[in-house]
Amino acid sequence: MAVALQPIRSKAAAHVPANPATPYLDLDLGIALDQFVALAAALPGTAIHYAVKANPHPDLLRALYAAGSRFDVASPAEVAGALQAGAHPEDLVYSNPVKRRADVHTAYAMGVRLFVVDSPEETAKVAEAAPGAAVLVRLVTSGEGSDWPLSRKYGCSTPECIQVLLEADRLGLDAAGVAFHVGSQQRDPQAWRSPILAAGRIFQAVRHAGLTPRLLDIGGGFPALHEGHHPSFATYGEAIQTALTEAFGADRPVTLAEPGRGIVGDAGTLVASVVTVLQRGPVRWVYLDAGVYTGLVETLDEAIRYRLVTSADGGPTGPAVLAGPTCDSADVLYERTPVQLPLALAEGDTVHLLSAGAYTTCYSTVGFNGFAPLPTRMVSGPVRS
Amino acid sequence: MAVALQPIRSKAAAHVPANPATPYLDLDLGIALDQFVALAAALPGTAIHYAVKANPHPDLLRALYAAGSRFDVASPAEVAGALQAGAHPEDLVYSNPVKRRADVHTAYAMGVRLFVVDSPEETAKVAEAAPGAAVLVRLVTSGEGSDWPLSRKYGCSTPECIQVLLEADRLGLDAAGVAFHVGSQQRDPQAWRSPILAAGRIFQAVRHAGLTPRLLDIGGGFPALHEGHHPSFATYGEAIQTALTEAFGADRPVTLAEPGRGIVGDAGTLVASVVTVLQRGPVRWVYLDAGVYTGLVETLDEAIRYRLVTSADGGPTGPAVLAGPTCDSADVLYERTPVQLPLALAEGDTVHLLSAGAYTTCYSTVGFNGFAPLPTRMVSGPVRS
Repeated sequence: MAVALQPIRSKAAAHVPANPATPYLDLDLGIALDQFVALAAALPGTAIHYAVKANPHPDLLRALYAAGSRFDVASPAEVAGALQAGAHPEDLVYSNPVKRRADVHTAYAMGVRLFVVDSPEETAKVAEAAPGAAVLVRLVTSGEGSDWPLSRKYGCSTPECIQVLLEADRLGLDAAGVAFHVGSQQRDPQAWRSPILAAGRIFQAVRHAGLTPRLLDIGGGFPALHEGHHPSFATYGEAIQTALTEAFGADRPVTLAEPGRGIVGDAGTLVASVVTVLQRGPVRWVYLDAGVYTGLVETLDEAIRYRLVTSADGGPTGPAVLAGPTCDSADVLYERTPVQLPLALAEGDTVHLLSAGAYTTCYSTVGFNGFAPLPTRMVSGPVRS
Repeated sequence: MAVALQPIRSKAAAHVPANPATPYLDLDLGIALDQFVALAAALPGTAIHYAVKANPHPDLLRALYAAGSRFDVASPAEVAGALQAGAHPEDLVYSNPVKRRADVHTAYAMGVRLFVVDSPEETAKVAEAAPGAAVLVRLVTSGEGSDWPLSRKYGCSTPECIQVLLEADRLGLDAAGVAFHVGSQQRDPQAWRSPILAAGRIFQAVRHAGLTPRLLDIGGGFPALHEGHHPSFATYGEAIQTALTEAFGADRPVTLAEPGRGIVGDAGTLVASVVTVLQRGPVRWVYLDAGVYTGLVETLDEAIRYRLVTSADGGPTGPAVLAGPTCDSADVLYERTPVQLPLALAEGDTVHLLSAGAYTTCYSTVGFNGFAPLPTRMVSGPVRS
């Protein structure tokens, strides 16, 4: 795939000096584009809709759109961000299953015509606020095998999905198909199989009722390189292809995917500095100038474990608990299962949290305790063509 | 206490229209001042240092300062906020026990002369970056009895506190005394007793060594009216007074307290709207337009349980799980122990989360998923004098 990426500098990026004080996110658009290309290659025939929520940086959206990505959005602000990046409304899937009515009106007015729903109530809402739009019904999944699993917040059972699509058709909507999500940082490529088979049964049932579903949204969940092994994108692609063939045979629907972390996770490095290292009884505490309130929300419950590289690497290591800079006692990263860090690590050393491009800058607080939101620095790279 | 409060409108407040779309925080400065006065009355002889981190709204800081409050700060930005509210540097305690060296330099240059430390390393840092400053050593507590308890992130044992104060003196610092914190939303007034007695022992030991400690910082932890009972401020004051007498007799040190939630918690109401109500199997889900990423971080692990008032109150109620508006599955408020809400509750109804003035606006993300940070609306009240 030809990738034409000009060096772009947004206003936001311009505010960050060339060698900013830590903490900041180093974002490498080249890696994000490589991941996009790799995922697209692993999922032939599947349209990639980058999940804007993972990292909505305008330079990133522009680069991905130029490379051929479409977008998964969940609010009018995300629609606006995607359109500003060059996308057309037909490039968007509005995948938030539960939406403010006013937001549906706004998105519809901005041209969006594809919405996800997961209940008769939401279907009626879309029929009122976005008449004639296409809808995908969200199928519930177990979330098993993922590091950041899903709650029961969203999704219908197979029989409910059938009812919702029939109801959508009755209300004049285009009952276009099925969407699901297997949970973020999903380590098991087989996690897609069961919902794909269920989608096949839903397609069959509603076709019997005279509908013409044609779209299957296989969601996100593609992992970044956090602690622990994950299979290659190719392995995911093969498992998904096998399941699609099993469920649909030659009559495969149009497929789309919504990767967020899988594209931008590995493109970002959170660069922090050591504030202090303290021995408290048997425990070594390493205090960083970044923490839960400056982007590292996914460390809560130790769900996402970032790989660490420090400026003191090379010598012997030992366990340490990481803590953030605010005076909030909840601002602690890994207390249950400590990380291994160099024994020589000291104040002023740099700690890189790898594969931190997703769900960090966007999860920053507005400045809790007077610590500013995590800024982004673009890694300068060669112009790609 | 005479309270002279002129109606003040900050730039930030001016951005919020008179009847803003939900969600927003309604902030009543009159209630915050009443709480300040009540706490000051319950703790005679104790200087109240409002904890800026709980809610740093400039109008609030100005009103509290005008009423006689001092401030607890934890970063240069919070120092600046306090000074802009009219405070002088000597009104501030810099209570973050672990600080960036550059931040200590900055705070010292801004005039701050009272810092909390909790290790020999931090003591040496303050001696270098804030020569001659006064220091309080942070004593570890159990955090038992609090809804938002403390981790082992901060604090020294009694013998370590003694060593730190001796070291501070040796390094030319003013070894001024002891600080502790019993955990946020502390429901047990007796929680102060054990650390006060320990502080008495520390004072005695370092006096034997020739030091002249004189300050005891009894921290925060004073509760807001969340679910469940808490004793009156007077009960806390009596328990603390009794412990002080037991520990120090007639030789009571100068005391200061750092309430945040106790002052501003009850002054705020988070006003949200119902996006959708859905029955999912046996569970009723109520989706709000505010959630974990728009200020309700303290609902994580269901630690803080806000009291709820809705526009549909009056009829029969039933259990419900609350969820926020982002398409993040972690954006769920009370799933383990559902809340009781009217069965008639429907889209468009208003839900008030009471006593939400602390740790909400400041915990908002920068706009995750395109949902804006929680804005503040000042409740207009009479001019007080």
